[in-house]
Amino acid sequence: MISSTPIQTSQPVAVILLSGGLDSTTVLAMAREQGFAACTLAVDYGQRHRAELDAAAAVSKALGAIEHRVVRMDLRSIGGSALTDDIEVPDAAAIDPDQPSIPITYVPARNTILLGLALGYAEVMNASDLFIGVNNVDYSGYPDCRPEFINAFASLANLATRAGVEGLRYRIHTPLISLGKDEIVRQGLALGVDYAMTVSCYQADEAGRACGRCDSCVLRREGFERAGIADPTRYAV
Amino acid sequence: MISSTPIQTSQPVAVILLSGGLDSTTVLAMAREQGFAACTLAVDYGQRHRAELDAAAAVSKALGAIEHRVVRMDLRSIGGSALTDDIEVPDAAAIDPDQPSIPITYVPARNTILLGLALGYAEVMNASDLFIGVNNVDYSGYPDCRPEFINAFASLANLATRAGVEGLRYRIHTPLISLGKDEIVRQGLALGVDYAMTVSCYQADEAGRACGRCDSCVLRREGFERAGIADPTRYAV
Repeated sequence: MISSTPIQTSQPVAVILLSGGLDSTTVLAMAREQGFAACTLAVDYGQRHRAELDAAAAVSKALGAIEHRVVRMDLRSIGGSALTDDIEVPDAAAIDPDQPSIPITYVPARNTILLGLALGYAEVMNASDLFIGVNNVDYSGYPDCRPEFINAFASLANLATRAGVEGLRYRIHTPLISLGKDEIVRQGLALGVDYAMTVSCYQADEAGRACGRCDSCVLRREGFERAGIADPTRYAV
Repeated sequence: MISSTPIQTSQPVAVILLSGGLDSTTVLAMAREQGFAACTLAVDYGQRHRAELDAAAAVSKALGAIEHRVVRMDLRSIGGSALTDDIEVPDAAAIDPDQPSIPITYVPARNTILLGLALGYAEVMNASDLFIGVNNVDYSGYPDCRPEFINAFASLANLATRAGVEGLRYRIHTPLISLGKDEIVRQGLALGVDYAMTVSCYQADEAGRACGRCDSCVLRREGFERAGIADPTRYAV
């Protein structure tokens, strides 16, 4: 049994949602830089790309998190997304930039559920700070990546929990929300992040090699290009 | 693969969180009575009492739901509750009524997570109505059973989803929120609910027989007594 006893540490404790991708890994490095003891939470939600989960565990250890937990949650029984359904993940080239819309890789209520899990973990750990790598630049089509959603979740958290009722005020940190991918890469590298460890691809193979074609791969590659930094991503082709 | 195509029905579709217990079963009957086509959602969140899940499937069918889905989610990796941890479930007699507090059977962020899942399912089904059997009378110590929490979740839902962004307004129905257990039983019986099918016990055995001693069993038994109705619950002792 995993203990639910809060860890004794002189640093404030934060829960960091960590997928093992470029964004959330950068967020973890930022939380550590800000002086938080990091409890990382990965969610095995039936995504296709399980290499992400391996990357999350490795990254959590490399960046000195005090704890890493994985919640298994099979969202395939709800469905509704190319990431969890048997819908083909589209090539970025097939997406019309003049017709911005909510992409089919959007998972219904995904960040509500992820933040709910992070909140439960935070309550068990007596933590009031949650970090999530939402980004409103590259993912502007995702409703639950917007600041107004994040603010609403913080209000909810204060009402939803024992700690909130007792006066704790939760803070939802979204340090990437207005950064372009190149700026995220630059800030992560300045903090010593090794992006070769991270997996962003929506359909990485078992070894964690990226397809190079999906929306996530294209955004990531452009980020390194714009930052003028060699792309350390391992590609399958 | 389960289809995520919305079902064609002339009735409005609602998602009902259904544990298989007395409360949520009554809620399902109420939603049906109000004319909703019911999509029921049970969550296998690592609870001890798996008989509840069998009851949920049976009840869903008996009350004419058009669909029943189960999301597996292992909250034991987060912990923090007697319902998911290896903490002994207390006898109701051991709880001091003069010292009301948040009980140890409280699962951190439970209703936030459950409503998040229901919201994701609702979005896939094009449903705007969610039903949850929270009760602020018997569970007044649970922060996420209060009306202010429910209202905050509805506000969040409107910001969290594709449908919300496109103008859909979600409604979170809590028809039990101010009812005593006796009134819940009376209303359910008037709607034809067979409570022998339901399992409320926190530690029911594999056959679904109740312990008769835990908080949930005592509340349930008192409900039947106060309603002046024979208790159809199957007890292990």
